[in-house]
Amino acid sequence: MTEQLDDLAALLRDGEPQRLQQALTEISVGDTVDFLERLGVRDRAVAFRLLPKGVAVEVFDMLDQSLQLEIIEGLKDADVAHFFDSLDPDDRVRLMDEMPASVARQMLRHLDPRERSLTGIVLGYSSGTIGREMSPEFVAIPEQWNAQQALDKIRRAGENAETIYTLPVVDRQRLLKGVVSLRGLLGAEDETPIADLMTEADSVIVDHEAEDAARLCADRKHLAMPVTDKEHRVVGIFTVDDALDILERAESEDAARQGGSEPLHRPYLSTPVLRIMRSRVVWLLVLAVGATLTVQVLDVFESTLESLVVLSLFVPLLIGTGGNTGNQAATTVTRALALGDVGPRDVMRVLWREVRVGATLGATLGTGGFLVAGLVYGWDIGSVIGLTLLAICTMAASAGGLMPLLGKKLGADPAVFANPFISTFVDATGLIVYFLIARAVLGL
Amino acid sequence: MTEQLDDLAALLRDGEPQRLQQALTEISVGDTVDFLERLGVRDRAVAFRLLPKGVAVEVFDMLDQSLQLEIIEGLKDADVAHFFDSLDPDDRVRLMDEMPASVARQMLRHLDPRERSLTGIVLGYSSGTIGREMSPEFVAIPEQWNAQQALDKIRRAGENAETIYTLPVVDRQRLLKGVVSLRGLLGAEDETPIADLMTEADSVIVDHEAEDAARLCADRKHLAMPVTDKEHRVVGIFTVDDALDILERAESEDAARQGGSEPLHRPYLSTPVLRIMRSRVVWLLVLAVGATLTVQVLDVFESTLESLVVLSLFVPLLIGTGGNTGNQAATTVTRALALGDVGPRDVMRVLWREVRVGATLGATLGTGGFLVAGLVYGWDIGSVIGLTLLAICTMAASAGGLMPLLGKKLGADPAVFANPFISTFVDATGLIVYFLIARAVLGL
Repeated sequence: MTEQLDDLAALLRDGEPQRLQQALTEISVGDTVDFLERLGVRDRAVAFRLLPKGVAVEVFDMLDQSLQLEIIEGLKDADVAHFFDSLDPDDRVRLMDEMPASVARQMLRHLDPRERSLTGIVLGYSSGTIGREMSPEFVAIPEQWNAQQALDKIRRAGENAETIYTLPVVDRQRLLKGVVSLRGLLGAEDETPIADLMTEADSVIVDHEAEDAARLCADRKHLAMPVTDKEHRVVGIFTVDDALDILERAESEDAARQGGSEPLHRPYLSTPVLRIMRSRVVWLLVLAVGATLTVQVLDVFESTLESLVVLSLFVPLLIGTGGNTGNQAATTVTRALALGDVGPRDVMRVLWREVRVGATLGATLGTGGFLVAGLVYGWDIGSVIGLTLLAICTMAASAGGLMPLLGKKLGADPAVFANPFISTFVDATGLIVYFLIARAVLGL
Repeated sequence: MTEQLDDLAALLRDGEPQRLQQALTEISVGDTVDFLERLGVRDRAVAFRLLPKGVAVEVFDMLDQSLQLEIIEGLKDADVAHFFDSLDPDDRVRLMDEMPASVARQMLRHLDPRERSLTGIVLGYSSGTIGREMSPEFVAIPEQWNAQQALDKIRRAGENAETIYTLPVVDRQRLLKGVVSLRGLLGAEDETPIADLMTEADSVIVDHEAEDAARLCADRKHLAMPVTDKEHRVVGIFTVDDALDILERAESEDAARQGGSEPLHRPYLSTPVLRIMRSRVVWLLVLAVGATLTVQVLDVFESTLESLVVLSLFVPLLIGTGGNTGNQAATTVTRALALGDVGPRDVMRVLWREVRVGATLGATLGTGGFLVAGLVYGWDIGSVIGLTLLAICTMAASAGGLMPLLGKKLGADPAVFANPFISTFVDATGLIVYFLIARAVLGL
């Protein structure tokens, strides 16, 4: 498939817009999106304008938000209003968050009154909450109705709703009583009361964190979840495709941070090189400054090093192994946090597990290190290496397991505390441990 | 919430099964699953037996597969058959994959004939393909029908189907012609022909890789996708909640491998310490053996080190920075691969980007290193550090960007080539570069 998309890109480069226009009518909307996401900014603007209007709206809707913004910047006002109007309220708000405030206000003014008021509802919740991601367009079913009445309402009012497959059931005060599925309604006799068809609802409060809500929706396999205010009144609905979006963003963020860079928030090939560089340079500088600690530690022990240069041979191996061990623990715990398998309250349980895992790993590697280094460089050196591996692995696993939990407790992204941060921390402390053990064992 | 679940666990420890049984009736199925996933093996078996039979089936269905297996091992044959029967064919097959073959066969024999034949269909496809994850229970709509006929069929035959919200439309040869949504059917007049309601279908071939299919389903926001054979005949359907499962497993795997360990395939707190240790020790040993390369490199340059011990002070900083840079590139490219933003064919585009990013980062850090090291240790040393940083960053970013693509081309998991692997690779090559530059600049 990518091969075919590259052929299309070649048509663009060769200045054959007519043939490209023809070719674009022959591939699906999804493939068109993939095609656009692989182009540079200018090529994408050209290609986008070649799409028939109906297709363009669908494609625009599925594009990455950073790319939507670029396309909007390149269009005339009247066209922009058209695309803007076609978005769902929650997607529209997410796009507006990225625009200069003056542009966003102007966009809002062009919307038709109904869409404007829906957008206003979503805009009222703070960024990062599920309120910002939900849809205020839903069909609620009164609990005293029967299946037939509910189906009639869905046929009548369902057109604009975000979903009609999962429907919140409410009482006269609009308080959430449960959910009913369209499948259940269709399978029931006309006269069956809704109360008999409805099931208990997992719901989220509107100012709840969006990522947690998305994880809940995915974990419990819901197609949609009602969103309520604090009094349990239904204010919106949140669907599994919103959840997928949120989780994909969160996971890209975690992956980037674990690798020690900021997330790009856009497809790799469509990101300018300078922007990729900027996403990395700050972390790299911070870590390099942290790493100067290792220079200072070694400086302190320079006399030890001078009297026994062989000690310096093992420095990369020891700190590398420490970094790897810490990294393994941090990654495991970060993922468990993201999946909700552990929480900040589990600090002691996690610490106790990682101390044991680290010590076992350290004993295994330490024995190996003792034997190999001992055979080659003498048993004195072997003992130093073996003991250091035992100490470093235990320390690194414990620190690696704790840091993400600590980060979460401090309200920071736990993934930030994974790999590169741990490596830098373990490098410095590991060297101190190494030289202290060396001095003690070798009597330097 | 976790606080409340810990209170329940306390009831178990205090030997109050009656109070726990009572408390369990008051929490939702989802919360019960969370509760069980935080317990040890024996406690979980006890708690599970306290659940009312109807709830137990629902809970069993939502449990992590590794935990399902443990529970089944602790039950009597008659009970096992009951739980086994309640699973969907695809979930059943996934569980059977983990059982000893003899047990799996016995289970299969206990199933009722219809379920057994459905399970047989799924079992016929190889592990890792979408055929293994799809459901063979779907409702297909003939293209020559109208909306009313389709709705009648759904009401009649929909009960056992995996989903009724997205329905494959087929011709008389059962070839896939498109999909129609239940929403579209409900919103249409009775007489509207299906051909007018149906839309183009994104479908997957049955022996396609499951992860790619899941990513496609999530990217294109489909609630379900038809699965066809090579002749384009519909053989099954694949829903978004299957996709969510597959992606969660794939992402846990990527996260673990990026951290240099094997995925646990089960919730962290419910995993025995020895098993966590085993998931890490192999990688750690492999990397440690790789790291002995650094000892050998340093051994070769020992005379250089002896004549100028100050060079050894910068070893952790230089290789750490190299590791971080390589790691950033590898993580970005691995994620882009997972999201389908780049493919193995993009090797040259990725390489060219990473060379530029690496060189820019190297120039920035190199200038800083030159100034700081120059001021403290003299301009000779400053030049060595600055030049080495420039070289290492360029090299590390290029290698980090290439390795995941190479891995993919070789059919390995690209995430394996991320962080720890790159760090070890960069450690050894970085040291060589460092000492060569030092010898050249300092005339040693």
